[in-house]
Amino acid sequence: MNDVKKVPDVVIKRLPRYYRYLGDLLNQDIKRISSGALSLRMHVTASQIRQDFNYFGGFGQQGYGYNVEFLYNEIGKILGLDEGDSTIIVGAGNLGRALACHSGFERRGFRLVGIFDSNPDVIGTEIAGLQVLDICYLEDFLSKIKVDIGILTVPKAAVQKIAERIVKCGVKGLLNFSYAELNLSQDVAVENVHISDPMMTLSYRIRRIGNEQ
Amino acid sequence: MNDVKKVPDVVIKRLPRYYRYLGDLLNQDIKRISSGALSLRMHVTASQIRQDFNYFGGFGQQGYGYNVEFLYNEIGKILGLDEGDSTIIVGAGNLGRALACHSGFERRGFRLVGIFDSNPDVIGTEIAGLQVLDICYLEDFLSKIKVDIGILTVPKAAVQKIAERIVKCGVKGLLNFSYAELNLSQDVAVENVHISDPMMTLSYRIRRIGNEQ
Repeated sequence: MNDVKKVPDVVIKRLPRYYRYLGDLLNQDIKRISSGALSLRMHVTASQIRQDFNYFGGFGQQGYGYNVEFLYNEIGKILGLDEGDSTIIVGAGNLGRALACHSGFERRGFRLVGIFDSNPDVIGTEIAGLQVLDICYLEDFLSKIKVDIGILTVPKAAVQKIAERIVKCGVKGLLNFSYAELNLSQDVAVENVHISDPMMTLSYRIRRIGNEQ
Repeated sequence: MNDVKKVPDVVIKRLPRYYRYLGDLLNQDIKRISSGALSLRMHVTASQIRQDFNYFGGFGQQGYGYNVEFLYNEIGKILGLDEGDSTIIVGAGNLGRALACHSGFERRGFRLVGIFDSNPDVIGTEIAGLQVLDICYLEDFLSKIKVDIGILTVPKAAVQKIAERIVKCGVKGLLNFSYAELNLSQDVAVENVHISDPMMTLSYRIRRIGNEQ
């Protein structure tokens, strides 16, 4: 936690990608990898990789390559994945259900501890082994169980109010799927997920296939 | 389509964000915005914005600001959103359902024309006004209806084969939610969506709140 250099956002956003790729290498029983080989796989230049890693002390010897398992574990620790953050999902619609059942979260060490909704037809049903709770019990729940991250899959019109309620109970991070910008104090970390963005990027790219390469 | 400069990936990835922000401004009936004001809203430097826009001819007069509606429409055209790409979803589980019902796609001009699955319990059910079709009719469907983008929400183990089948029928773009890297020819554009990535970024950021700002 004793970072000296401020790590740029773009570097932070690359850490999960490094972590995923290194996990794939581990699964393939690859023990060592050079920054050059990692660079080819990840479509990032080797010097970029070395620069990125230097924010965290470097990790490896040049020429000899990186120890995959060590690097995987170190990046996992930097990301805090070894600490097993607890999460809740607010909004048990299709997207909430999909996320509750998403094995990737569990694989990364996140623990889903509660699912909330306001729809009487949904409250009490079971998703991923948890009973959907009435949103009116949100504060009560959060006063008893420590939650690190709230995942928001509620309609756009409801999200600001729900976010404020969660944050008031001490939750420090929000993953927001609700396509509305949240207005919250600086000591809350928010990641907005916009599923239309990669779709629009794709729309751009299919029009230029063959033209730019 | 007569791009002269190769536009860097990071710039392309920012276009959907510009488009979203400009859409918000339009909704707020804001007619003009300076790169400085846009910069504050988007947390991108003003010079970055000018640099990005210069890849596409600039769009506005310095000092006088950008015409919001003009800029919104121009970026929409660059992204190809005015052409109304047709899409199919393969995999009608929770995530497929959530995406089929996601109003953001339609709002950006994308038209969902088919949903496919292999599960007999799901085939024939209705999602977003469409009957889920048996995946065995995929090729037949694609030979009759032009599809621009395939959205893949099938299990990891199935995705490579499904992707190959779709691409063989002439689909040029794939939005892949299946957490497996696809191995396809260069003339197909693929955007991989990794929902765990922003979750991991969040995990990093909640541990450093107050330390870096």
